[in-house]
Amino acid sequence: MNLLTLCGIVKTMAEGQASPADEPVRQRSLRTHNLGLVLRLVAASPQPVSRADVAAATGLTKATVSTLVDELLAGSLLVEVEPAPRAGAGRPAVGLRLAAQGPAGLGLEINVDYLAACVVDLTGAIRLHEIRRADQRGRPPDAVLDDIAGLAADAVEAATAEGLLVAGTALAVPGLVANGVVRLAPNLDWRDVDVLTALLSRSPLAALALTVDTVTVDNEANLAALGELHAWAEADPAAARASFLYISGEIGVGAGIVLGGRLFRGARGFGGELGHVTIRPDGPHCRCGARGCLEAYANQEALLRDADVATDDLASDAALTRLAALAGAGAHPARMALEAAGSALGVAAADVVNLLDVDTVVLGGIYAPLAPWLAEPVLREISDRVMTAAWAPVTVRPSVLGPSATVVGAAGSVVRAIRDAPTTWLEGPARVG
Amino acid sequence: MNLLTLCGIVKTMAEGQASPADEPVRQRSLRTHNLGLVLRLVAASPQPVSRADVAAATGLTKATVSTLVDELLAGSLLVEVEPAPRAGAGRPAVGLRLAAQGPAGLGLEINVDYLAACVVDLTGAIRLHEIRRADQRGRPPDAVLDDIAGLAADAVEAATAEGLLVAGTALAVPGLVANGVVRLAPNLDWRDVDVLTALLSRSPLAALALTVDTVTVDNEANLAALGELHAWAEADPAAARASFLYISGEIGVGAGIVLGGRLFRGARGFGGELGHVTIRPDGPHCRCGARGCLEAYANQEALLRDADVATDDLASDAALTRLAALAGAGAHPARMALEAAGSALGVAAADVVNLLDVDTVVLGGIYAPLAPWLAEPVLREISDRVMTAAWAPVTVRPSVLGPSATVVGAAGSVVRAIRDAPTTWLEGPARVG
Repeated sequence: MNLLTLCGIVKTMAEGQASPADEPVRQRSLRTHNLGLVLRLVAASPQPVSRADVAAATGLTKATVSTLVDELLAGSLLVEVEPAPRAGAGRPAVGLRLAAQGPAGLGLEINVDYLAACVVDLTGAIRLHEIRRADQRGRPPDAVLDDIAGLAADAVEAATAEGLLVAGTALAVPGLVANGVVRLAPNLDWRDVDVLTALLSRSPLAALALTVDTVTVDNEANLAALGELHAWAEADPAAARASFLYISGEIGVGAGIVLGGRLFRGARGFGGELGHVTIRPDGPHCRCGARGCLEAYANQEALLRDADVATDDLASDAALTRLAALAGAGAHPARMALEAAGSALGVAAADVVNLLDVDTVVLGGIYAPLAPWLAEPVLREISDRVMTAAWAPVTVRPSVLGPSATVVGAAGSVVRAIRDAPTTWLEGPARVG
Repeated sequence: MNLLTLCGIVKTMAEGQASPADEPVRQRSLRTHNLGLVLRLVAASPQPVSRADVAAATGLTKATVSTLVDELLAGSLLVEVEPAPRAGAGRPAVGLRLAAQGPAGLGLEINVDYLAACVVDLTGAIRLHEIRRADQRGRPPDAVLDDIAGLAADAVEAATAEGLLVAGTALAVPGLVANGVVRLAPNLDWRDVDVLTALLSRSPLAALALTVDTVTVDNEANLAALGELHAWAEADPAAARASFLYISGEIGVGAGIVLGGRLFRGARGFGGELGHVTIRPDGPHCRCGARGCLEAYANQEALLRDADVATDDLASDAALTRLAALAGAGAHPARMALEAAGSALGVAAADVVNLLDVDTVVLGGIYAPLAPWLAEPVLREISDRVMTAAWAPVTVRPSVLGPSATVVGAAGSVVRAIRDAPTTWLEGPARVG
């Protein structure tokens, strides 16, 4: 491992992170701070690093680094690996890596037409991914929560059999969430469902002794955006500070906004409602009660209807496959429908770029496979409507994770939280209990 | 001073602040951190506080607090005041306050039809405010910069005569700014004007030995939003963490976005371009080249035209006064014009609330005196178009600073920077030079 690269990683991380500044710094917070620093340094390095490398890159003493590393090893967050043979004198140093058999994150997803579970280990590797397709519309919330708890039970059992310890879980729902309560999920017809309490009371989460600190419920587009971010960061450490708009196309249209490598939830947690940005104040009626929202122009239903794809005899994924086939074959209604939806998406995306100045727009969910026809009109509207695009260009690209972004992002958010604040894990109930 | 209140202030500040977390914490950064902590604690307290109060509220030792306070006194950032008589035993403690005769901020503003300067001291008090009205359109940038430098020279002389030391300056321009360069100011017809270099080379700034670290150039709406934030925070410390959209109505339409008490500039610094949010994709042509932008529906020109206010014989401020008088008298065209502009502002504001979830929309610039007629349609569109408004309400209010928000905000941003990071001042060239 090149020391200059490591120092660069420390600098990169420092620029992308934030924490409260108006607290007096004392010994305890110093330790917390430095444990996270060492863990993230090892995580960001593509090769194993030695204790001496960590000391040199961080400026901490070797003795301090050794104490911190011992604690991370004892907590199953790091492992030691055999040293690589090296040129020159002296005994080669033992390398450090993130533990693949330590704590893991469980991601769960309730969507309109499927339920899913996923386990991701501390290195970010997907260890399990399970989808059960079934229409959830009109079912009582309790029945849906029973099913997702059953899926979670199977996932925890499989993860435990692989030597993993599920450290927390994140559940994605297609709606507006506050403090674990789904305030509104229009396409499930849920209103004020206390999903967090329901989950904690059901096995296997009850058996895992997870607490409100380790179980989160979040909007699906937010978790998908995090999944996208983490996938980019695995491929390129500089991408850990990316800023982008992730557009999630489903039955509804949502968005996750990432700024400087962090999910931006808005001032009160309900930001990213791209589906209800106005395209035309007197446009078609939207399910939300207003007129002319993006969702009314560009959701799955509008796309399939305008493209003359009959949906009576088809599951929605098969209908979308047919739409892509028709567009690929040059069918006029399909092309026109994608052009119209792309233009509406572009008007809304241009609003976001004008307001937030992100440099990338990601087409996610159903829009990812349709990107060959959507990207051009989206980019055209941005170029026409954003003055700064002349010198601060914007890229439009399909999601790299595609439809699994949400549940992978949910699982990944748990291990990212441990990587960001390892003391929560080291001192948490799952460790001391 | 109530100790519980002081502790509450520390907590409030901690929640609202952010700084890099991925740097090892060592002695030097500890001192920097704690100097800022003490200064901001004194600043946030409505009454003088003693060294013992500071120690109790922060958890720092009395000896550490004394060392920090001595440094802040020596740097003219704090002053000691006579102790208030108090009940109970013991000698009353000497109180600490922000220095009103120490460093001050110089705010400068180039607008389309005036130039302005303002000096604000460390306590936030306005010590000087000067406006010179003259149309700047079509003048060469160098001539405008000569005039603003002259205005700055007079302001510095007056501030020095009052015992203040100008510690830095912020210049507001109606355009897009990056690294001190005005990339584009459509209403001045400026493109790629290096304003920072031009300012630094002109007296009196050259004479003050200010550097790129102490001179900033920023968009007018951004600085106005900061002015608004600081004015709120002086009246109510909890407002220091406010989140709001400040809409700046002028010849153009801009916005400053404040999130959790911090100016949000967007990912690359060009955010807040509310004037070019789309109201209707095929609407009227906008100066930016696109169609249907908010600016084309709601700027000063559109308002006066639609209200049938003749502008040939009137300065723009007189024309706006006439518009308000007509609306107050119930004149139909004036009322219709304000309803139409308010509705367009509301559609754009609803987009912002859907994306950023701010709880307050501030009508600034020319919109402040027109708020009696604009606020209702703005709020109506937000209520209709933002689902979360049902449980997360949004307030629409006029700017408290009115048209002076920009230049007051510019001057205030300089002293706020010192309050946020006093070591920059204590160790800066203005002190050691």
